[in-house]
Amino acid sequence: MSVTRVEAEALDAADPLAGYRDEFVIADDSLIYLDGNSLGRLPKASAERVREVVEEDWGNHLIRSWTDRWIDLPSRIGDLIGTSLLGTGRDEVIVGDSTTVALYKVISACLDARPDRRTIVIETGNFPTDRYVVESLAAHRGLEIRWLDQTDAGGLSTTQVAAALDGSVAVAVLSHVDYRSAALLDMAGITAAVQDVGALMVWDLCHSVGCVPIDLHADGVDAAVGCTYKYLNGGPGAPAFTYVRRERQAELKQPIWGWWSRQEMFDMAQGYQPSAGMRAWLTGTPGILSLAAAEPGIAMIAAAGVPAIREKSIALTELGVRLYDEWLAPRGFGLASPRDASRRGSHITVSHPGAKALTLQLVEKGVIPDFRQPDGIRLGLAPLTTRYVDVFDGLSVLADILEATMAVRPTGPRVNAPR
Amino acid sequence: MSVTRVEAEALDAADPLAGYRDEFVIADDSLIYLDGNSLGRLPKASAERVREVVEEDWGNHLIRSWTDRWIDLPSRIGDLIGTSLLGTGRDEVIVGDSTTVALYKVISACLDARPDRRTIVIETGNFPTDRYVVESLAAHRGLEIRWLDQTDAGGLSTTQVAAALDGSVAVAVLSHVDYRSAALLDMAGITAAVQDVGALMVWDLCHSVGCVPIDLHADGVDAAVGCTYKYLNGGPGAPAFTYVRRERQAELKQPIWGWWSRQEMFDMAQGYQPSAGMRAWLTGTPGILSLAAAEPGIAMIAAAGVPAIREKSIALTELGVRLYDEWLAPRGFGLASPRDASRRGSHITVSHPGAKALTLQLVEKGVIPDFRQPDGIRLGLAPLTTRYVDVFDGLSVLADILEATMAVRPTGPRVNAPR
Repeated sequence: MSVTRVEAEALDAADPLAGYRDEFVIADDSLIYLDGNSLGRLPKASAERVREVVEEDWGNHLIRSWTDRWIDLPSRIGDLIGTSLLGTGRDEVIVGDSTTVALYKVISACLDARPDRRTIVIETGNFPTDRYVVESLAAHRGLEIRWLDQTDAGGLSTTQVAAALDGSVAVAVLSHVDYRSAALLDMAGITAAVQDVGALMVWDLCHSVGCVPIDLHADGVDAAVGCTYKYLNGGPGAPAFTYVRRERQAELKQPIWGWWSRQEMFDMAQGYQPSAGMRAWLTGTPGILSLAAAEPGIAMIAAAGVPAIREKSIALTELGVRLYDEWLAPRGFGLASPRDASRRGSHITVSHPGAKALTLQLVEKGVIPDFRQPDGIRLGLAPLTTRYVDVFDGLSVLADILEATMAVRPTGPRVNAPR
Repeated sequence: MSVTRVEAEALDAADPLAGYRDEFVIADDSLIYLDGNSLGRLPKASAERVREVVEEDWGNHLIRSWTDRWIDLPSRIGDLIGTSLLGTGRDEVIVGDSTTVALYKVISACLDARPDRRTIVIETGNFPTDRYVVESLAAHRGLEIRWLDQTDAGGLSTTQVAAALDGSVAVAVLSHVDYRSAALLDMAGITAAVQDVGALMVWDLCHSVGCVPIDLHADGVDAAVGCTYKYLNGGPGAPAFTYVRRERQAELKQPIWGWWSRQEMFDMAQGYQPSAGMRAWLTGTPGILSLAAAEPGIAMIAAAGVPAIREKSIALTELGVRLYDEWLAPRGFGLASPRDASRRGSHITVSHPGAKALTLQLVEKGVIPDFRQPDGIRLGLAPLTTRYVDVFDGLSVLADILEATMAVRPTGPRVNAPR
């Protein structure tokens, strides 16, 4: 049965999370923003928080803010993420550095903990920076990279990963949700398989944190890294978080020692001694404006709760898949995301040879998705800000473009489609 | 002859840089802030810039800001620092990461470029994070650290450094201005001595950039790192800059490869290929709020010009030394900074066994210096915001505290000393 805009409107009307949209700055309500998984929208509270940190903390309280207000931010925000979004205890997560530097530190620590093993397992489809940082570590240490290939949009299976493992593997680095296909991997099964051969498992949570249930304790994960600027709405380049399971904290030691990771940092003493707990994973002075800006968005995701967010996320992507079936599949598009919602994160990617040009046309018409090489249009559906009508309207604009520019006619009428 | 407040007032009245103070947020004019070398004050333009980046770029322009407004910030701000403050050409300086991570990358690259050499030269008095990061690199690579000791507040002499060098040294890491004593080292002479034995020279410019003339080209420096949140007024935890001399860019390769350092980063292609020039020194996504906030302060320092800033800086520290001689030396204080202004940065440190308690008393009375282990009160004099009367009044408050609490009487009256 054809999807109608009335149906999308009804879904919005019944949406228990609908009110959260009012908590964000949305200057142009006609803009259809389907890229909240690249840069989440600005929470109103974040704009206010930044103003306060700049004008009051920096401007007026000056240097005293370090000890009075800022020094604990990496731990406080880390604990918020860990205990409310990742299923960890306190002092297992810390925030600081870029995602890439955080990955470097975690993977380095894993390699140092498995000095006799010479192999790093990673996927060719992993996010580029994960691949590049692994390449740098392999090049500097003379290690081998074992590349895994996705065979389809469903993502790597646990069986496929397990088949690539042996006693030479020191660490495996995989993304929980694929940045292109949104394939959601089997965290528990893959982690167990990796640990079965005595290797360590590092998960990249950039595309799953805040939209997919994560339980790092239950799934036995050794270490993880994720960013805060996608579904957590932390702001451009907001710092990454690092998780190290408490039981691994004695074994895994990060390689870039700095004054922020030292015991009693303000003593400025001779001889490095790591701080207790996750403070040992800090390095240098974190960018306080970017760090402080991230907290309100994270707190809002925590308050909304991942179960409710996941429920809406699935409904949004299901709507997208239905519209794909109706409007895009007949016009030469493919679905580059899993059809099974339980195997999918909070975005969908549709593929077409003309995807790059079509993305530019969408942006011109006020619909913002993301182009992904070589042929993907990625639609990021952020449950706190994306409405069902945004999915309907955004794909409707795409269908209109196709109708206007392509010979193939649509298979059926779109009902109530605006624009 | 006794220093009078009238004299300090006259210096302010004649100060060509006096007008810059109005460009900063100064909510409480009675606060005497003598810690601009830990955290520079907030430029009014920075508060406005952050508001614009948050509300307009992030809030409204959203993901499009990455390509339209943010992607070039690391290069643009790097070029501004390099060409106006460091005597470099374009594309020799880039901004991103914390100072500690930047030091790690530069020192790693130097060690990789001298694989047969086993020694790193550094000073026991260097800033803690420099020492710790060198300790981490030495520990991971099995290298030796050759520690140099300052023999007096004048800092390391070129002769002393040269005597510690031989063909085993891969790299020397020294601070241009000492964070405690303010001793200003002989950049040209020490760099030449280090290069004479075939080693590489890395300067930490954190306490000299923006207040002391620096000419990295003329002095033949291989590489340098500095922070932007002290005399450059970049804001708390603003990102560091990295300089790599153009002639060394082919030889020195940074170790943490990420998507920001790759050629054509948005192609997200397989296989790492470093970007041309200094973009190869980036790693992950920089914190845009912290990065953008740093630019107006740097631009203001560039506009004021380091020669004029240096002239006032010397006059401020000379006034401080005169007041030390008059009020503090007779009360058991020592001068922990060079007496010769040409060998001194823009702060002075006075030492006393009760320095920690005295610092707390000063803060209570609205004077903010910095305590430095074990016995130093550090007075940071930032020429664009510190007035001569601030130096007079701040030290006057210290003298009053001493008078009230100590048996020793002052040697002479202080004239016109207000609070």
